Amino acid sequence: MTATALDSRIFRDIFSTAEMRQVFSDEFRTACYLEIEAALARVQGRLGIIPPEAAREIESKCRIENIDLDRLKTQTERIGYPILGVVQQLVDICEGELGEWCHWGATTQDITDTAAIMQIRAALDLVEQDMEAIAASLADLALRYRDTPMAGRSNLQQAVPLTFGFKCAALLAAMQRHRQRLRELRPRVLVGEFGGAVGTLASLGDQGLAVQEGLMKELKLGQPEIAWHTVRDRIGEVGCFLGLLTSTCGKISMDVKLLMQTEVAEVYEPFHAGRGSSSTMPQKRNPVASLYIHATTALVKQHTAALLEAAVADHERSTGPWEIEWIALPEIFLLASGSLRQTRDMVAGIEVDAARMRANLDLTLGTIVSEAVMMGLGPHLGRQRAHDLVYDICREVVKTNTPLIELLVKDPEISRHVSRAELEKMVDPANYLGQAGEMVDRVLAIEAKK
Amino acid sequence: MTATALDSRIFRDIFSTAEMRQVFSDEFRTACYLEIEAALARVQGRLGIIPPEAAREIESKCRIENIDLDRLKTQTERIGYPILGVVQQLVDICEGELGEWCHWGATTQDITDTAAIMQIRAALDLVEQDMEAIAASLADLALRYRDTPMAGRSNLQQAVPLTFGFKCAALLAAMQRHRQRLRELRPRVLVGEFGGAVGTLASLGDQGLAVQEGLMKELKLGQPEIAWHTVRDRIGEVGCFLGLLTSTCGKISMDVKLLMQTEVAEVYEPFHAGRGSSSTMPQKRNPVASLYIHATTALVKQHTAALLEAAVADHERSTGPWEIEWIALPEIFLLASGSLRQTRDMVAGIEVDAARMRANLDLTLGTIVSEAVMMGLGPHLGRQRAHDLVYDICREVVKTNTPLIELLVKDPEISRHVSRAELEKMVDPANYLGQAGEMVDRVLAIEAKK
Amino acid sequence: MTATALDSRIFRDIFSTAEMRQVFSDEFRTACYLEIEAALARVQGRLGIIPPEAAREIESKCRIENIDLDRLKTQTERIGYPILGVVQQLVDICEGELGEWCHWGATTQDITDTAAIMQIRAALDLVEQDMEAIAASLADLALRYRDTPMAGRSNLQQAVPLTFGFKCAALLAAMQRHRQRLRELRPRVLVGEFGGAVGTLASLGDQGLAVQEGLMKELKLGQPEIAWHTVRDRIGEVGCFLGLLTSTCGKISMDVKLLMQTEVAEVYEPFHAGRGSSSTMPQKRNPVASLYIHATTALVKQHTAALLEAAVADHERSTGPWEIEWIALPEIFLLASGSLRQTRDMVAGIEVDAARMRANLDLTLGTIVSEAVMMGLGPHLGRQRAHDLVYDICREVVKTNTPLIELLVKDPEISRHVSRAELEKMVDPANYLGQAGEMVDRVLAIEAKK
Amino acid sequence: MTATALDSRIFRDIFSTAEMRQVFSDEFRTACYLEIEAALARVQGRLGIIPPEAAREIESKCRIENIDLDRLKTQTERIGYPILGVVQQLVDICEGELGEWCHWGATTQDITDTAAIMQIRAALDLVEQDMEAIAASLADLALRYRDTPMAGRSNLQQAVPLTFGFKCAALLAAMQRHRQRLRELRPRVLVGEFGGAVGTLASLGDQGLAVQEGLMKELKLGQPEIAWHTVRDRIGEVGCFLGLLTSTCGKISMDVKLLMQTEVAEVYEPFHAGRGSSSTMPQKRNPVASLYIHATTALVKQHTAALLEAAVADHERSTGPWEIEWIALPEIFLLASGSLRQTRDMVAGIEVDAARMRANLDLTLGTIVSEAVMMGLGPHLGRQRAHDLVYDICREVVKTNTPLIELLVKDPEISRHVSRAELEKMVDPANYLGQAGEMVDRVLAIEAKK
Repeated sequence: MTATALDSRIFRDIFSTAEMRQVFSDEFRTACYLEIEAALARVQGRLGIIPPEAAREIESKCRIENIDLDRLKTQTERIGYPILGVVQQLVDICEGELGEWCHWGATTQDITDTAAIMQIRAALDLVEQDMEAIAASLADLALRYRDTPMAGRSNLQQAVPLTFGFKCAALLAAMQRHRQRLRELRPRVLVGEFGGAVGTLASLGDQGLAVQEGLMKELKLGQPEIAWHTVRDRIGEVGCFLGLLTSTCGKISMDVKLLMQTEVAEVYEPFHAGRGSSSTMPQKRNPVASLYIHATTALVKQHTAALLEAAVADHERSTGPWEIEWIALPEIFLLASGSLRQTRDMVAGIEVDAARMRANLDLTLGTIVSEAVMMGLGPHLGRQRAHDLVYDICREVVKTNTPLIELLVKDPEISRHVSRAELEKMVDPANYLGQAGEMVDRVLAIEAKK
Repeated sequence: MTATALDSRIFRDIFSTAEMRQVFSDEFRTACYLEIEAALARVQGRLGIIPPEAAREIESKCRIENIDLDRLKTQTERIGYPILGVVQQLVDICEGELGEWCHWGATTQDITDTAAIMQIRAALDLVEQDMEAIAASLADLALRYRDTPMAGRSNLQQAVPLTFGFKCAALLAAMQRHRQRLRELRPRVLVGEFGGAVGTLASLGDQGLAVQEGLMKELKLGQPEIAWHTVRDRIGEVGCFLGLLTSTCGKISMDVKLLMQTEVAEVYEPFHAGRGSSSTMPQKRNPVASLYIHATTALVKQHTAALLEAAVADHERSTGPWEIEWIALPEIFLLASGSLRQTRDMVAGIEVDAARMRANLDLTLGTIVSEAVMMGLGPHLGRQRAHDLVYDICREVVKTNTPLIELLVKDPEISRHVSRAELEKMVDPANYLGQAGEMVDRVLAIEAKK
Repeated sequence: MTATALDSRIFRDIFSTAEMRQVFSDEFRTACYLEIEAALARVQGRLGIIPPEAAREIESKCRIENIDLDRLKTQTERIGYPILGVVQQLVDICEGELGEWCHWGATTQDITDTAAIMQIRAALDLVEQDMEAIAASLADLALRYRDTPMAGRSNLQQAVPLTFGFKCAALLAAMQRHRQRLRELRPRVLVGEFGGAVGTLASLGDQGLAVQEGLMKELKLGQPEIAWHTVRDRIGEVGCFLGLLTSTCGKISMDVKLLMQTEVAEVYEPFHAGRGSSSTMPQKRNPVASLYIHATTALVKQHTAALLEAAVADHERSTGPWEIEWIALPEIFLLASGSLRQTRDMVAGIEVDAARMRANLDLTLGTIVSEAVMMGLGPHLGRQRAHDLVYDICREVVKTNTPLIELLVKDPEISRHVSRAELEKMVDPANYLGQAGEMVDRVLAIEAKK
Repeated sequence: MTATALDSRIFRDIFSTAEMRQVFSDEFRTACYLEIEAALARVQGRLGIIPPEAAREIESKCRIENIDLDRLKTQTERIGYPILGVVQQLVDICEGELGEWCHWGATTQDITDTAAIMQIRAALDLVEQDMEAIAASLADLALRYRDTPMAGRSNLQQAVPLTFGFKCAALLAAMQRHRQRLRELRPRVLVGEFGGAVGTLASLGDQGLAVQEGLMKELKLGQPEIAWHTVRDRIGEVGCFLGLLTSTCGKISMDVKLLMQTEVAEVYEPFHAGRGSSSTMPQKRNPVASLYIHATTALVKQHTAALLEAAVADHERSTGPWEIEWIALPEIFLLASGSLRQTRDMVAGIEVDAARMRANLDLTLGTIVSEAVMMGLGPHLGRQRAHDLVYDICREVVKTNTPLIELLVKDPEISRHVSRAELEKMVDPANYLGQAGEMVDRVLAIEAKK
């Protein structure tokens, strides 16, 4: 029986992914603890700090099957942290007294922090997969719809035309920045922890740093320059990255749900039999993924703030702030996994109604390209005259509900200089796309080089 | 396999309670759906809107054992919401076509919202139990330590004395306000939802409101004055209440962890064998509950903000904001349950070291009562002279590390007017507690009347 | 020169109101300090605690014109708090030594907290005015458009019809709940503070509570049951109230901006010459107020969370959390004032295009009332048959782009039982409004009784 | 008259800095607008898009002295944005019709976004100055106190010794990461905006990108790959950076205020006459800067979340989310400036009481080094025996209040193997500092290379 939406039997695959849940499961986390304890024993055995047979014995017992999770629960509730419980269980199952050499010179938080970093490493790999899949879909859409005109909208009002490919390329550019951020973040964040009680490695005499170096090599993590038990910007940075990344997913879903409106109907989430449909209204096609993306994204940002609060830690082991991370770090990754996976699936199968896009461009009877007409008439009438005349005609369009082209053609001053054919070219939204195509190409060129 | 800390086999009873998890389990929520569908059928059968035999048949099948949760998961992922899946399963198991009358005139969100309110009702009952237990412990402590002096601290500096009972009474007063808030909130929030697709009850003709009234009576919920599918201040208010309530828990835990410091050592979390202890330092007694309270409280407030965001809904069924509640409402109650339960257990067994409190009052060599001495000497020396003289003597205390009483006694101007015995009375912190006791009594009097 | 948007010469009247800024100005706050000091002197003079001539002298000098704010700035930066600076200035300008009796027995936070409550009182009065104006406008709209049909929208899809009045009444019901909340909150929150250094009133001997009582009577504030210097749920509650209240404004603005879309065009923000217009597109009518409401509301909720964090205070004078309030309390009221005022102005002058509402109901060619037709045909064809038949016909509507009525009329099974006239009645959205009108009346009845 | 704490005449220099306020003043922002319009005219004149004399005329008029801010306020309230108002004023003051060429092909948000980036650039320079000053102070402290022992504290309990230099070096390492983040962030974020109404540069035909390139060169900003009017991760990233950076300030202030406690008294904020002092308690030394840092930091993180929300924008010009930035971006920089400046001043003048640090190490009568004694006795008694024996003796220390060294010396099993002199070495905290010094050196070596 579970209680959170993220672990709910019913909702979990809506708001998160199985792969991400696996990374933050008790089993994976405990397996990380064991991997670290095994590596520590190996390194200390090699350096002659603990007896080689102890190292071998400990390493051989560091397997998740050997850990009784129910007992671990009881131990954790008693002690407050799960590490000592794991160590006690290892001590119990190791031959003779050999287990006593387990966890030598380490402190609880050394293991917990290093395990958290290993989880973050695995979780960021999953994040990257979805991010790259989204980027690939956006690149594909940008290319495919590079020249498909639609209404650009400003303040939810039709403004001037652009292309659907342009919209996608602007989002792709954000993904490219996120990719760069992830690349920069990894070496800074994927750094282990090993410092002993207050970070000085006191109980290992002058071998502490050698053990630390060996341990991090074993775990393929960066070696910290100094202990960071209570200097938590690394964890905060991960939260910030997920906040930034999912905000782009949120932007995508915002546009999709707006474009799916009955009155707009230009873009649809992928069709799944029954999904978003109604038992009484066969025509209905509700957005679904967009809603999940919106909600998970909204929550991610509050967890970003929580992780920043967790960084205001006290002394050498924080008294409360650290526990914020225990809750918020899994949550933010789970929520982000939901946001990303729903976005990935959505953009991969998105349906674009180019005909409706074109039709909606006519909703304003041509006034959407009034700027184009002003520009086009400028050379003939003078810029200011062109502006005033077109502006007045546009008012007339609205008042009389007559298409702009008809009023333009009828205007004696205009028709003196410009033919209907020329005017029709001016009012064709497809001819007023500026350098949208070039910008799409610029973004795609970056993508090609990644 | 679970992934959140709140559902983690290891951590769940640290950060939440089993009772609260039960309320937000898939099983409880689905059972609420069924209870509502059964009540709806009963009412509609009674009003002759659906055939009586359909009502009877539906009611008899509305049992959680009849629902296949795995199938419900698949249905929910397909449709986007769990209600239709439940209804389909009911239709399938009802005799003949009778199940078709199930969910008559209702919309998905009618059931989901009403179920959420039923969960909130059950959850608030749990919250109240912990809140009342905390209040009872605080009242007990306020009474027991009504006259136990300790250092009052301002900006983490010893200021003037107060009593431990006074500290507890100030917190009890907050609990009294929370109790009042809960009382006011319930009738406003514990109101069901039944409005059909957009809230107008259109498909029930002129019987909609009669059904609504009957349904809410069956469920012992308030009847809404109008549909509130997208007017969500009720849910937001619950989040605010939990934010306020747990902030008091946070305050309590803040003081406890500060008072447990090695250098202060006046108060301790209850002793549990092994808890908060160290394998190398037998003298250590770490705060544990305080940490959990701090962390859960910190997260509650971010969920309060999330629930306020969820209230910015669109049109008649919100497109994303609602789903924020799906995640945040269980989380905030779970986190609050953890914060409250840990606080409850902590205050119930808190250990108070009155001797150390008294000893710490002497740390400043008497300057903590310099104000009292100024007041006491005023009538003899004149107020201003008393201030200046005592102020100078206090500087001397700090410089020479001599107790205030010794310097006071030695001062010729003072000793001319006041005897050592009188001065000793003045510098006794227990004589400078103002009306702390009366204020404790005031709060306890309110408690007695509750 | 100012730097925040809320104080910006350019933006301040967009994001806040002059009245609210006045309440949180240095001048108003300092005047509150003076009012408190004057009342304190008056009460203590009356009780014989300070010389009557001191009381008179202090009271006479407690005028904002007597305070040098530049000097106060320097004093505040030196001391950390503004109160002592004010007191020192008073001491300086009082005759002889009489000023020394000023602030007798009080602590800095007594004055600051009480002043904050006085500011909250004044600010809530402003909030209430805007809230009541919004309620009045919503009541007026609910009545005026009680029977004006428009599309109800679920997940941004047209669902079934409702009325614009119904939409407004649902929002009015929220305002009624906010009104109730405000009424309950006031006596709990509008309580002063007077406790001395750590709340025990020690320096006033056994007269402390009498002074406290007299002071609160003078200031027309509630008397606290006990000191609340570090028990801050009162302040948090104010933040929660503003969070809830503005979330309703956010909901209103969300609907307005969606209804103003080029493709929907049913509702408009009030017309102001030039506002939201474009220099090239005369037809454009951008939402403006909606944007400000959205933004201020979004920020209010983060400040709600900040005020909850501020409540996790330490000991008897908090070391940092209190200062969160110094910043967040003015901000949240200023932002709320902007959100409310913009909402107030918007709903007061909102333009409703009932014809376009009606026209949009036809966008789905009648399928928006498919439910009504199913219901209407049920008695003739049997419920299930009616459902299946209408469902199939609706698919045909979509496929062939033919109005529902035409296909219904052509269907032999249907036309056998029902005439075109009857069918036309069924597909008229105005006939499928359920009990929307009754619900509007229920809400208006509550309003009439307020 | 101002209303926010950040602009308050009394509080502004406490919570922000004059330099940062200048960057976010109306004057600076408007001057940025003018600088952009001038550069745009220059580039367009050069490219032959506008008449050279118009370019010259516009450029000559783009001076802040020419702008009437009161008129701009009125214009902004009417239009909703300040840009058009500035342009209109320019048009008015330019000779003849030349001003009409101003703002050619640009949209409001092009100017506003580019100005925001220019403000961010200037603001980040200020941030960097404070950050580097903090780093320099921390480096100095780390070096100076490299070998000054003090109690390391875990969960607010004394754990094992470390050095004050080590504490500072761990914080310095965070500053080094922040420095790296800032270096990476700048080229990604300091990118201008120029895209026209919906980003396609339509009104400039095929010269749009050339203008964009020229404009960004003039302004020394990066050229965007594509329009980013509603793809706001750049702004969000700035918010995240400030959140991360100030969280380190928060950590510093947390430790300082805890170390300043009456009962700890190891470290003090710099002395300023009168600051943090009491009129009745001359011995008192309240933390002050720590409080401001705590509060501003707490608020920064909520604004980080707000900026992430602002990134969920709609279509080509967002309808509300953008305005969140208008408020939150200045605020977050102002708050960060306060947090940084207070931290800078605090660490520059921090007072360290090494004697008290040493004295506090004796508070636990030697048990703080029980681990060291276990380690030291291991070779003589066997590891497990040493542990058990020392553990029991430590209990005795606590029970009898006898120093550890005395009980060790008295123990016959121990004294058989180890002399008092050797034992005294073991219990000297200065001998149990592990590799704290080496780690300090590692961090300082990085600093030397920066």
